[in-house]
Amino acid sequence: MGLVIGVIGESAFTDAEHDALAEEVGRRVAAAGAALICGGLGGVMEAACRGARGAGGRTIGILPGLERAGANPFVDVAVATGLGQARNVLIVLSCDALIAIGGGFGTLSEIALALRHGKPVVGLKTWQATRGESAAPVVPVASAEEAVREAVRLAREGR
Amino acid sequence: MGLVIGVIGESAFTDAEHDALAEEVGRRVAAAGAALICGGLGGVMEAACRGARGAGGRTIGILPGLERAGANPFVDVAVATGLGQARNVLIVLSCDALIAIGGGFGTLSEIALALRHGKPVVGLKTWQATRGESAAPVVPVASAEEAVREAVRLAREGR
Amino acid sequence: MGLVIGVIGESAFTDAEHDALAEEVGRRVAAAGAALICGGLGGVMEAACRGARGAGGRTIGILPGLERAGANPFVDVAVATGLGQARNVLIVLSCDALIAIGGGFGTLSEIALALRHGKPVVGLKTWQATRGESAAPVVPVASAEEAVREAVRLAREGR
Amino acid sequence: MGLVIGVIGESAFTDAEHDALAEEVGRRVAAAGAALICGGLGGVMEAACRGARGAGGRTIGILPGLERAGANPFVDVAVATGLGQARNVLIVLSCDALIAIGGGFGTLSEIALALRHGKPVVGLKTWQATRGESAAPVVPVASAEEAVREAVRLAREGR
Repeated sequence: MGLVIGVIGESAFTDAEHDALAEEVGRRVAAAGAALICGGLGGVMEAACRGARGAGGRTIGILPGLERAGANPFVDVAVATGLGQARNVLIVLSCDALIAIGGGFGTLSEIALALRHGKPVVGLKTWQATRGESAAPVVPVASAEEAVREAVRLAREGR
Repeated sequence: MGLVIGVIGESAFTDAEHDALAEEVGRRVAAAGAALICGGLGGVMEAACRGARGAGGRTIGILPGLERAGANPFVDVAVATGLGQARNVLIVLSCDALIAIGGGFGTLSEIALALRHGKPVVGLKTWQATRGESAAPVVPVASAEEAVREAVRLAREGR
Repeated sequence: MGLVIGVIGESAFTDAEHDALAEEVGRRVAAAGAALICGGLGGVMEAACRGARGAGGRTIGILPGLERAGANPFVDVAVATGLGQARNVLIVLSCDALIAIGGGFGTLSEIALALRHGKPVVGLKTWQATRGESAAPVVPVASAEEAVREAVRLAREGR
Repeated sequence: MGLVIGVIGESAFTDAEHDALAEEVGRRVAAAGAALICGGLGGVMEAACRGARGAGGRTIGILPGLERAGANPFVDVAVATGLGQARNVLIVLSCDALIAIGGGFGTLSEIALALRHGKPVVGLKTWQATRGESAAPVVPVASAEEAVREAVRLAREGR
């Protein structure tokens, strides 16, 4: 199976800039030949799926609810879990690296679960977490291009 | 999104005939233009995926473990859940109808969860369950051809 | 930790006799010094908890929803899971033996998951499942007294 | 049902001071008449349970593994989930407020899930998370006494 990149972020945009960033991230993930996995809902997830599908890529949505119909229209393979936020760990386990774009507390939980399971996380305008002197090792990037380049590099290293 | 048919059954064959049946089921699911979803492991799951991929179909594996590498080689999209048998409900929720082939207690749990969630189940040499006068409404079929025909018909009805 | 007996069955009574049976089962589980674990809702679960609490026993409810407030009033320790039917496996894993009383498809899934994980199941007017010549090994009993006696015996054997 | 306070933190101590802090937190949770819920393992979880049990309190452990035997010896009610880190959301949903003591990435995920579900979190030498100008609203405290006082106050407010 090829590379799979997770894209995580808020389901309703709190920042207009995130829409364009997420779409470009999706497009570049597809262009890199990787599949895109996400939570399957709106906001960052939908924009990223739209970008990936527009570039001919594959998109997988791991939904919190009981119905596949809850997926955004750019999800290619929808998995309905009925698990609520417990589904966050499935996104993390099913990819090689993650790109976090903005995001609320659900996104912060996904970043933490990714680090817990040793999956690399690249961050675009997202959470930073520190405990005393140490910081959670989210790789900061400044553009969609850099985000995908770093995520693909880290994903390949982890294989 | 198109039709998705779930195929459930034992992960290690207890009956040699099931291998050929499951492969033919997979081939016919793909020929009907439906995606195939399963638990992603060996036995019935692997034979069904092999059949579907051989016929150009798409296969989705919802794995119990933490690693996508646990998927059989014919799984196209692997979702690692780390949930053990709690992942059974995800297979059920993510398809339009299920085909049960033989199977152990895990398969029986999937049949029951499918009925609990109102998903039709077609049975090939699988469990029958009764409580007093009433029987669990698994549709009995005698061949792979009949199994896929009935599952696709019921899946379309449920849409 | 002491013995824990799971009690499973329908959340809305389809058979008036089950109410009295479940309450007596709960009372006898408590009298045997075991804790009672169940799905925390109404019907068989509530009657069993009422019986156990009335006899001074401890009751644990593993709820499908997001709120502890969904527990019946006789649940002592409520665990809110938000997992829907995926929570069924938690009931199974957290007890030493199960007593099934009547029940719908959710109960059938719990019986199957229990057998899958090697937990003994005692059945009172509940599901029977067969596959070809073989039958799922649910121990049939005819009374609440016999159900608890057998469940406690099997629970001790399994330790 | 009475108040339930969640205690989260690392399963193997990285800081000797956390052992004493967690034990005092547990003792004070019990003294406040609240039950204590945690992940059921070692480290902060075990020290908190030891403190609570020593003060006559009730302790609930939501375990990641398949066996109740994985619980620390001070867990009163052990729930085996087999869900791995997906069990973190159950701890959050089953309490009225949480106290985080130190902790690794699993703890950070629990803090995030708590905030996602609107549960108050009190932090003792634990993670701080910021996104741009905004900070995750973990209430910082400096002692076990203050932690329990604040958690109980916030738990009561949320009822």
